[in-house]
Amino acid sequence: MIRMIVDCDPGHDDAIALMLAHRWADVRAVTTVSGNAPLAATTENALLVMALLGADAPVYAGADRPLVAEARHATAVHGESGLEGARRFDHGRAVADGHAVDQLIALADADTWVVALGPLTNLALAIERDPSWPQRVAGISLMGGSTSFGNVTRVAEFNIWADPEAAARVFGCGANIIQCGLNLTHQLCTDGATTQRLSARGTAVASFAADILASLHERLRQLAGRDDAPLHDPCAVLALTHPHLMETASRAVSVELRGDLTRGMTVTDERTSRRRDAPNVNVAYRIDAERATDVVLEALLA
Amino acid sequence: MIRMIVDCDPGHDDAIALMLAHRWADVRAVTTVSGNAPLAATTENALLVMALLGADAPVYAGADRPLVAEARHATAVHGESGLEGARRFDHGRAVADGHAVDQLIALADADTWVVALGPLTNLALAIERDPSWPQRVAGISLMGGSTSFGNVTRVAEFNIWADPEAAARVFGCGANIIQCGLNLTHQLCTDGATTQRLSARGTAVASFAADILASLHERLRQLAGRDDAPLHDPCAVLALTHPHLMETASRAVSVELRGDLTRGMTVTDERTSRRRDAPNVNVAYRIDAERATDVVLEALLA
Amino acid sequence: MIRMIVDCDPGHDDAIALMLAHRWADVRAVTTVSGNAPLAATTENALLVMALLGADAPVYAGADRPLVAEARHATAVHGESGLEGARRFDHGRAVADGHAVDQLIALADADTWVVALGPLTNLALAIERDPSWPQRVAGISLMGGSTSFGNVTRVAEFNIWADPEAAARVFGCGANIIQCGLNLTHQLCTDGATTQRLSARGTAVASFAADILASLHERLRQLAGRDDAPLHDPCAVLALTHPHLMETASRAVSVELRGDLTRGMTVTDERTSRRRDAPNVNVAYRIDAERATDVVLEALLA
Amino acid sequence: MIRMIVDCDPGHDDAIALMLAHRWADVRAVTTVSGNAPLAATTENALLVMALLGADAPVYAGADRPLVAEARHATAVHGESGLEGARRFDHGRAVADGHAVDQLIALADADTWVVALGPLTNLALAIERDPSWPQRVAGISLMGGSTSFGNVTRVAEFNIWADPEAAARVFGCGANIIQCGLNLTHQLCTDGATTQRLSARGTAVASFAADILASLHERLRQLAGRDDAPLHDPCAVLALTHPHLMETASRAVSVELRGDLTRGMTVTDERTSRRRDAPNVNVAYRIDAERATDVVLEALLA
Repeated sequence: MIRMIVDCDPGHDDAIALMLAHRWADVRAVTTVSGNAPLAATTENALLVMALLGADAPVYAGADRPLVAEARHATAVHGESGLEGARRFDHGRAVADGHAVDQLIALADADTWVVALGPLTNLALAIERDPSWPQRVAGISLMGGSTSFGNVTRVAEFNIWADPEAAARVFGCGANIIQCGLNLTHQLCTDGATTQRLSARGTAVASFAADILASLHERLRQLAGRDDAPLHDPCAVLALTHPHLMETASRAVSVELRGDLTRGMTVTDERTSRRRDAPNVNVAYRIDAERATDVVLEALLA
Repeated sequence: MIRMIVDCDPGHDDAIALMLAHRWADVRAVTTVSGNAPLAATTENALLVMALLGADAPVYAGADRPLVAEARHATAVHGESGLEGARRFDHGRAVADGHAVDQLIALADADTWVVALGPLTNLALAIERDPSWPQRVAGISLMGGSTSFGNVTRVAEFNIWADPEAAARVFGCGANIIQCGLNLTHQLCTDGATTQRLSARGTAVASFAADILASLHERLRQLAGRDDAPLHDPCAVLALTHPHLMETASRAVSVELRGDLTRGMTVTDERTSRRRDAPNVNVAYRIDAERATDVVLEALLA
Repeated sequence: MIRMIVDCDPGHDDAIALMLAHRWADVRAVTTVSGNAPLAATTENALLVMALLGADAPVYAGADRPLVAEARHATAVHGESGLEGARRFDHGRAVADGHAVDQLIALADADTWVVALGPLTNLALAIERDPSWPQRVAGISLMGGSTSFGNVTRVAEFNIWADPEAAARVFGCGANIIQCGLNLTHQLCTDGATTQRLSARGTAVASFAADILASLHERLRQLAGRDDAPLHDPCAVLALTHPHLMETASRAVSVELRGDLTRGMTVTDERTSRRRDAPNVNVAYRIDAERATDVVLEALLA
Repeated sequence: MIRMIVDCDPGHDDAIALMLAHRWADVRAVTTVSGNAPLAATTENALLVMALLGADAPVYAGADRPLVAEARHATAVHGESGLEGARRFDHGRAVADGHAVDQLIALADADTWVVALGPLTNLALAIERDPSWPQRVAGISLMGGSTSFGNVTRVAEFNIWADPEAAARVFGCGANIIQCGLNLTHQLCTDGATTQRLSARGTAVASFAADILASLHERLRQLAGRDDAPLHDPCAVLALTHPHLMETASRAVSVELRGDLTRGMTVTDERTSRRRDAPNVNVAYRIDAERATDVVLEALLA
């Protein structure tokens, strides 16, 4: 099984991604970051999910705000707690000693991937502290950005928009990078049928998943008038554990830091001419949604 | 027939667009602007094409450089003359007295469209001089921008990139605007079969078109490794003369003026949520390429 | 007497500047622009002051908004009318036929200066329409910008801030330019003693000046807690009519269009090293305030 | 004696500042950063100077490049080594274990100042890792920025320009900040008389100082045609050890991150109106150069 550190800001889809990673990969550590909710909330949510899963990997807390930008959270989607709808219980887990950035550096090796599901602040700080880090990890599979529409601004996705300077540092760091953006993640959705199946299963994990997905569906019904929900973060896990389900292409991708309308946009070179910039990212363009949904359900129903 | 003023910077595809407009519309005037080539060249090319067509509409020269940006030309595609490959002849035409901007204002009425095929400098200046102008014309059908890839930078198309400040003024002016961007124009291409058919026809217009398209094909073969050429500017004519061949959608579109990577990009709101900005542009998304090609050929072979 | 066209947006200090220009120069025309107040108001104010002075020069209306930026006015200083405190009368004057920009072009000659006292929109449009214009006028003496503090933002002065794109075009046009910025104009102030002297004189012009200066003093007392008022615009007239009262230095000056905190700032090269950029502007640094005040009063008391 | 950590990038004036700090303050640690030269060079130079002084404080290495910007060095002034002209010797010192940022955090207390003489990368990283840090130190006395001219660009000083994002983080962090910018430091200069006096003294420290100042004078003679050299960094030490020699004023100061001409400028609010922004920095405006020179010489000649 592929070895990974999961850097995340749970977050509903982060929680599902952790469930997938627990089932399909060897999770060495979870590191948390400010993003969908403040750091204290995302860390608590990570501990809760790891306890639910009976997973042993330690949870380390990281950056409590972006490098340069002000901290902003996705409360409209994830609620104040970052994991609205979750059935809370006394998990008895405590955050591990040590800073997430130090652990990202300490655990780096050629067989360990970093799966990044939130703003890229911790990763940027790891690169800043240890310039050799990008070459010392197997690679980075991240959920962030888009080759098409955005979800915060017209063209910017939350994780990149929340800390564009960190994202610029990561996209430019020379690591082996897989990008799962909104253009991909909107292909993999859950809906009412999913939550019913999970509820019917009745295990602790399946029920927990059913609850948080039901909450997410309700939020998106109000915000976007839709009955389903894209599974953003799980895609970045699947890109590693089930790469055959995805089509990727090698592209030049950079982060816009300055535009009035485009700050936080991932700018992908899809020009048809021969003047394309040198590629630095494997951009995921297609996912076999049907088979991927099976893989997701197999983990949640386990 | 629909009445129009054609503001252009010929340019190979501008020339084809003028041929289409001559066949399918009532062209009241042609106004020229610096763009694909310097103003003197685009004006000479407009006079040449109008003479070739035996068209009576006067040609007025306009802005010789952008509002704020430095003048930049598309020499790599169109050659130094702006219309490389054209068979030149002694056309005996002269540029008409009066400035293009004054004529855009003088000829404005509720039944007259402005078809804009180059940088939008003249239109912006008309708006600056006469704030009521956007409401006094039937509308503006323009070739410019993109909802996807660019052709100068990763995300910027030449006409918008060449004078972003003018484009911002036009997109924000409140006129009835139809946008034909690269996302659309790459659906309507000519190739070697087209030039052969035109050459075989043997009329002056068909031969002229065959020559300039052959030159364009050769340039794009070198630049982009492709054997065909998108007919960018003709789309903005067809959007008026044959609107049933197109699918459009009403969208919020703005021009980015500041980004390091995105200056000159048209930023379209295609978000899936309900928070979309109020639409200001009819964005053309699809063209029936087969039937549109017939319409183009019917004009060129006439 | 030096020949000039006065481009202005009266405005209290514009009005005083027109009085100075009437006394000490040969004013060929007045052109108006949106700035301290909307165009209709600044044009009406220019007509009022010219009638008060019995001056024959025609008043032409120009741009009613900036090139790219939204129109913004200095209502806090000049009131809604642009000339709060002025005694209005039935002046019987009408705005002259023709657009200000066309007149700036038509009246250009090697002996005629342009004195620019508002946002530089009209001048930029003249340059856009006639690229030879900067070389065809004697020069441009403008009130705008600063080498030190700003008055709208920390570092931007109103006239440049209100239309930075136009200002950039003017500063970069190659004309012979004299800049009177806030660093200079704050050296030439009026106070209560001035208004008393003007009131005591009792002529129509002196009384009018006394009224508007009293209004300006009151506004600045509230805004800035000061008892005097800088005579910004008159400096740009004095720079031509009484150049011996000023010290200038040749400097590279450009307009910042993009900064978050610095948009609309005039960026002057005052580095001490040898790497200075080539100068394009005569920056006025010092004015002999005592003698300049005498010159001002001589005009107002005439 | 005032307790301090010196964060620096020696650098000729950094070296003099370390000599001052050794004489007039209680230096607890030296932390180094990429700036005038690459990190390896600035760290080596710090070790060299501390050995020369017989100073015990440990030297910790920090960030080897800026947060977001590319690394750029002041080779034209300081040479490739960062301390051109220095007499090197086998100092036997080694860099201390631990990262500069961790030490800045560990040594923070209410009686310890941070004197920052290079790009502010290490300080920004300390704030990022420990948001309480700005309130846990006595304050920050920094050399950087300017209220007037720049030395890299027209308006940007090297330390801020080299890492504007870090500087923005520090200026906005809420700490007690004293800023010694170019407007101040150009008031305190050394010249040939200084180096002669130092040479004549003949001690190891005085001779070392004479050598590096002679090298600096020669560089500035070539770059700026001047015979003296501003003592930039020593000002930030003197602001703490001899505050009576300085005049400061409380001002709002922010760092411009985006301007085309102004990126890296410290934007100070010196408006004359009542609308000034709330102050966050004690800006040093005047230094008693004569007495300060005595203080500097007393340290170098000790």
